[in-house]
Amino acid sequence: MSLTRTVELEGHIIDSGTLQRAFGIVMDFGGSFEIETFDVGRHKDETSYCRMTVSADDERSLREILHELHQNGANLADPVDARVEPAPADQVVPQGFYSTTNHPTEIRYDGEWIPVEHIEMDCAIVVEQSAGDNTDARAYTKVLNAIREGDLVVTDEAGIRVKPPDRPRDSSGPFGFMQGGVSSERPSESLIREVADAIVATEERDESVLVVAGPAVIHAGGGDDLARLIREGYVDLLSAGNGFATHDIEHGLYGTSLGMDMETMEHPRKGHKHHIYAISEIIRAGGIEPAVAEGIVTEGVMYECVENDVPYVLAGSIRDDGPLPDTITDAVEAQEAIREQAREADLVLLLSSLLHSVAVGNCLPSTTKVVCVDINPATVTQLLDRGSSQAIGMVTDVGTFVPLLADAVLDSAA
Amino acid sequence: MSLTRTVELEGHIIDSGTLQRAFGIVMDFGGSFEIETFDVGRHKDETSYCRMTVSADDERSLREILHELHQNGANLADPVDARVEPAPADQVVPQGFYSTTNHPTEIRYDGEWIPVEHIEMDCAIVVEQSAGDNTDARAYTKVLNAIREGDLVVTDEAGIRVKPPDRPRDSSGPFGFMQGGVSSERPSESLIREVADAIVATEERDESVLVVAGPAVIHAGGGDDLARLIREGYVDLLSAGNGFATHDIEHGLYGTSLGMDMETMEHPRKGHKHHIYAISEIIRAGGIEPAVAEGIVTEGVMYECVENDVPYVLAGSIRDDGPLPDTITDAVEAQEAIREQAREADLVLLLSSLLHSVAVGNCLPSTTKVVCVDINPATVTQLLDRGSSQAIGMVTDVGTFVPLLADAVLDSAA
Amino acid sequence: MSLTRTVELEGHIIDSGTLQRAFGIVMDFGGSFEIETFDVGRHKDETSYCRMTVSADDERSLREILHELHQNGANLADPVDARVEPAPADQVVPQGFYSTTNHPTEIRYDGEWIPVEHIEMDCAIVVEQSAGDNTDARAYTKVLNAIREGDLVVTDEAGIRVKPPDRPRDSSGPFGFMQGGVSSERPSESLIREVADAIVATEERDESVLVVAGPAVIHAGGGDDLARLIREGYVDLLSAGNGFATHDIEHGLYGTSLGMDMETMEHPRKGHKHHIYAISEIIRAGGIEPAVAEGIVTEGVMYECVENDVPYVLAGSIRDDGPLPDTITDAVEAQEAIREQAREADLVLLLSSLLHSVAVGNCLPSTTKVVCVDINPATVTQLLDRGSSQAIGMVTDVGTFVPLLADAVLDSAA
Amino acid sequence: MSLTRTVELEGHIIDSGTLQRAFGIVMDFGGSFEIETFDVGRHKDETSYCRMTVSADDERSLREILHELHQNGANLADPVDARVEPAPADQVVPQGFYSTTNHPTEIRYDGEWIPVEHIEMDCAIVVEQSAGDNTDARAYTKVLNAIREGDLVVTDEAGIRVKPPDRPRDSSGPFGFMQGGVSSERPSESLIREVADAIVATEERDESVLVVAGPAVIHAGGGDDLARLIREGYVDLLSAGNGFATHDIEHGLYGTSLGMDMETMEHPRKGHKHHIYAISEIIRAGGIEPAVAEGIVTEGVMYECVENDVPYVLAGSIRDDGPLPDTITDAVEAQEAIREQAREADLVLLLSSLLHSVAVGNCLPSTTKVVCVDINPATVTQLLDRGSSQAIGMVTDVGTFVPLLADAVLDSAA
Repeated sequence: MSLTRTVELEGHIIDSGTLQRAFGIVMDFGGSFEIETFDVGRHKDETSYCRMTVSADDERSLREILHELHQNGANLADPVDARVEPAPADQVVPQGFYSTTNHPTEIRYDGEWIPVEHIEMDCAIVVEQSAGDNTDARAYTKVLNAIREGDLVVTDEAGIRVKPPDRPRDSSGPFGFMQGGVSSERPSESLIREVADAIVATEERDESVLVVAGPAVIHAGGGDDLARLIREGYVDLLSAGNGFATHDIEHGLYGTSLGMDMETMEHPRKGHKHHIYAISEIIRAGGIEPAVAEGIVTEGVMYECVENDVPYVLAGSIRDDGPLPDTITDAVEAQEAIREQAREADLVLLLSSLLHSVAVGNCLPSTTKVVCVDINPATVTQLLDRGSSQAIGMVTDVGTFVPLLADAVLDSAA
Repeated sequence: MSLTRTVELEGHIIDSGTLQRAFGIVMDFGGSFEIETFDVGRHKDETSYCRMTVSADDERSLREILHELHQNGANLADPVDARVEPAPADQVVPQGFYSTTNHPTEIRYDGEWIPVEHIEMDCAIVVEQSAGDNTDARAYTKVLNAIREGDLVVTDEAGIRVKPPDRPRDSSGPFGFMQGGVSSERPSESLIREVADAIVATEERDESVLVVAGPAVIHAGGGDDLARLIREGYVDLLSAGNGFATHDIEHGLYGTSLGMDMETMEHPRKGHKHHIYAISEIIRAGGIEPAVAEGIVTEGVMYECVENDVPYVLAGSIRDDGPLPDTITDAVEAQEAIREQAREADLVLLLSSLLHSVAVGNCLPSTTKVVCVDINPATVTQLLDRGSSQAIGMVTDVGTFVPLLADAVLDSAA
Repeated sequence: MSLTRTVELEGHIIDSGTLQRAFGIVMDFGGSFEIETFDVGRHKDETSYCRMTVSADDERSLREILHELHQNGANLADPVDARVEPAPADQVVPQGFYSTTNHPTEIRYDGEWIPVEHIEMDCAIVVEQSAGDNTDARAYTKVLNAIREGDLVVTDEAGIRVKPPDRPRDSSGPFGFMQGGVSSERPSESLIREVADAIVATEERDESVLVVAGPAVIHAGGGDDLARLIREGYVDLLSAGNGFATHDIEHGLYGTSLGMDMETMEHPRKGHKHHIYAISEIIRAGGIEPAVAEGIVTEGVMYECVENDVPYVLAGSIRDDGPLPDTITDAVEAQEAIREQAREADLVLLLSSLLHSVAVGNCLPSTTKVVCVDINPATVTQLLDRGSSQAIGMVTDVGTFVPLLADAVLDSAA
Repeated sequence: MSLTRTVELEGHIIDSGTLQRAFGIVMDFGGSFEIETFDVGRHKDETSYCRMTVSADDERSLREILHELHQNGANLADPVDARVEPAPADQVVPQGFYSTTNHPTEIRYDGEWIPVEHIEMDCAIVVEQSAGDNTDARAYTKVLNAIREGDLVVTDEAGIRVKPPDRPRDSSGPFGFMQGGVSSERPSESLIREVADAIVATEERDESVLVVAGPAVIHAGGGDDLARLIREGYVDLLSAGNGFATHDIEHGLYGTSLGMDMETMEHPRKGHKHHIYAISEIIRAGGIEPAVAEGIVTEGVMYECVENDVPYVLAGSIRDDGPLPDTITDAVEAQEAIREQAREADLVLLLSSLLHSVAVGNCLPSTTKVVCVDINPATVTQLLDRGSSQAIGMVTDVGTFVPLLADAVLDSAA
């Protein structure tokens, strides 16, 4: 005898792949389904609606199917309130806690659907309300280490609605609706122009561009042009590591990056001495900002950030030299700083930095636009494989990409 | 004023992604659609049916949309006969010739739907019929260089039905319904067992296993176990190049592959002398088969092929030494030999051989099962990105994969 | 008019490449040389000696040449004492501080050559002596952030001797003398046996084996066999990250890794819920050791570490979930813990973990044996490109490597 | 009791690594050596000379050591004439035939050292002389399939001198003396300028630039700029495949490459129809040259080759569509055509084409300058790992590289 539950899907569920995934999930998990109602959107702007009964042989299988369906936008048909349970201790979640996707999410609380703020994947949802009054109940995500004893944590999957992004109705613009697939064989120049247009449009809407940059940007010769983009106002936030900032500063101080003369390349030197000494000089000054103020650092990406009030997060890692005084060495603190930037960003450029890009990507909702550039196709694939609804992956050399992008941005803005 | 046409889709069009692609195509190309009829399959075993009117601003756009829809399984609602036109010259197709997909295809001829034989992508369809009698009209694919003046070549897209493979209803077995995505982070051993089971099952059904192998199989130490699989009857066809066969024979003759002692690895030698001399010895004998008969070649993959009557195709390439007398040096002839093997194969193993795997893959219909093993994730992605309905990609070392596979096959068969 | 200095090289300077590099450096930097004395070692066990005068057009060029020569084992012929200068502030080095290589190094102090303890690249050398007595003067490395105001830091390059490792006289064993070059086309099984023999020999000499492991070890199915190696006493130290430990614990708790059932693979689930909950459970218990004591964690790599008193370092990173209470979240602290392990290690296995492998590799002297296994050839190349004198790189799947290694180690030991 | 032989090395044997390799070979193979004479070159322009006695325990080991030494530039001290033996049959070499390196080589014949013409690796050396007169004896390489019965083939290793290229004395210019190591983290723009300068200098010396190009050059948008370089006279020879030429012609005919509109990218189409039809049109015209003459092909790389009399070789492969009538489908014939181009070339650019680049590289002597550009670091490493004395590897996107190169060449020439 089989167990059943009824779920609903709504929206552009055919062309966004939601319905395909739903059917696939039921079959993969050995269940079956019966469509009760299906109202197809007759035009591209009409949404569809599907109500179906899912059945499975046992409770565990049914629960797994419902879990997967739920993560992919199928919601239980008979809405009840979300269940909440107090966290038993700091950093400890109740059993059966609900772990978020990165898609827009609502929970039903006291009969009302309220949106979950700051949606981000792999978090718990905490509900907060003023005493005796649920009109201002709020729900928001918390990462595990932010959970405090007694926090009301949402458990199970009832009373929760997940909405994977619809395929954009308008196909103009370069941001594809990701269905897998990153190609290195694309006409790069025209794509770069489209990314440039998107950056300019973002700035024109007073939205924020976040650049996540790895040391390869400097080594490969893209530093001057990234600095130019910052100076011209096309970067609002910078996320990087101690290595990036040090290479950039070393390049400005000594014209070298890891000891290599960037102009002539005549005297390659393997020594890290300049690298260490650059850090030491910044420590002596008390940080990057005082070093800029004292005239020690007079050019480069970090210089332009200071001069143009572009906030930067430098996250530490176990392979760092130094680190610089500006580097946040505690991983939890650094993650929190990254999270704040990620929440502000409307367009994110991930430039040759796997570690920082993953960290930033983990904090992004699926609705943020993402451009990922790396010379390694596996890195691009990994970074885009997170359900972002609007994403571009480019397998190319960041040292030629950044100059071409800077030119294209300034052209596009002109 | 916009132009319209009506198309139909039928089958498991939701979970196979057909409908999603259809809607996406219309929107990507700037058209619009209006659903006329939509009968949803209520259970997983019921098919769905969709009839929709597609419109576009101009004739060219509409034609492009219809072309793409057609390639993806949407067929014109008002069937007419396929148009045919004689080829104007040898190896020359009429303008507007229809270029095939690798999906099962039918054409309408004299009011009857007839299947296209030997479906393979990027071919023309030629119709042949006995004089005065269309009961035995046949349609089959021809590659460009096989076209002869006067061949009746199908043009345009009317009267043609393409059927992309449905998602298998039964999710058991390792062969996923490809929707992109190859991961190197999979529990390899259990997946190898499932591939082994699939090989054993193929043999039990008297179907054919085709192995496509690159030289890395020998270098990495997988030669003995591939030979074992052949000896035990689990390989029916072998497709490789001159390099593979020579490394295998050299290994058998001298215990080396490209001069490296495979057992002790103590005396790595870079010289190709053994390699060239192995070819010279086979030429002296008159080919691999006489060399086996004369007792010159007494072990290895090629030896087992000869002893166990496993037909092999050795295709030449411009980087070959020699080549061996068995190697087909003409690319067109070699492709034809590969094509015949591909048509016979039911399960294809692509082992570390980009060039030969692409050549074989080009000739496979989308219904053939494929297992692709390479240490380079980009190679695996490229090989599987051809709409195969049942495919497994494994990013792993072929030198450890083949021995584990051979053990698993013999276990599974026992 | 040109400036000159005289340098000396001694040891197996021909076959270790030292002399080649020295000549190359002089020419690359536009200088010239004149050999004064050259005593060639006539047998393989005799060392050679070369005294040569280097000249350059200007002081700066000469200094650069001498710097590079020095880093590569050419020492000034007229030894003087090393110069020391007090650090001007905490974490600040004096100008011209000497930045270490990872090769054995000595400094001349009060006319005596004293070895630099804990040699590690990119550090400063600090000299310490008891008041009024230089018999017990010590020199040791300090990373930048460990420098304290007043530390006597070695500057310039006079009075310092660097000794790059000689090519081993005895070519037996798998550890090559690295001169670049990592190949994926090697007979993997025999190489694995040789690595196994090296591990067994290390343990027989009561030396230490350090394993650096990434999450891919667990995902790919190598966890059980790594646990077996620990249980059987073939691992003395473990260095990993929060992700590795969590995947391992999750696998033990739920039989999943990131939600995938490792045995059946039937129910792939993308959710991170198990992952987060595993961390939450360990936090509730107060850490991995109490979780083992309470019987919550009963198998796996971390379990075996606790049960067999194998010390582990879990270093945090900005992409971590949680983290586990055992994870050292501060990068500087974590690096210090890694450094202590690296100093103890005699043989290091780097298993599919770029970040942690780089961090460990940064702390290793060039005399430590290293085995690096990754499926990405670029990772292997990057990790071995640090002048290690005895290193093996293998481009292979860690999920098949670890089981084969465990079998080979137990075979070899039997 | 051990067996001994005496060998000599001469030239810049220290800084070119010859002596290091020689010592290493003796030790790797378990032999020992005794230096008899060592005259070190005292300045960078003086050569060194080393005479040493090599000993081994048995004849076979000694022979292996001598073989390896010989391949690396150590020649037997007591020169005798090279042994020659007639080839026993067409395409069959005598036992013990000498297999060439790609380094400049001489053989001793009738007491005279004569150079081996057209040196290329993995060939046999054939000696030819006019009847009764050895003053005009010639030696040249033959690949196996060119050997004819009775050809006098050099066997063994006596009477043969191999001269690996010396490290250039002059370090100016970008071409490094390859000792392994290709980095993606290089300042790309300045390196591109140096490659451009080398191209311009090659043309100014009336030497030949050979470009080997893969289809990715067209897909990635580099076709127009490669055409520009040809038009402006900076390319003397082109080597490519059927795929490259077809993509280029398709791009010219339809503004697409594999069906993708290169300008707007708005209508990506997967179909190969344009591709096949482009080939069909060229077949109809009778080839590329008649198609240019008839005004069918009016732009692009192939067009510029025809218009500017730049000879091209299009080699066929088993993955080709068509092929074009200009494509040489027989691998042996194609290889011969490639060989002729390779012999003429002074500077070779390998652009994103593994198969063709390997084929060309196989035919190049170690003295030819090589620039290799590919987005895959493994490809670059593989292509440069052939002992070329002057080589540059760049891991970058060919679609941005070619335009930057064309600009730099025209700048440099101006």
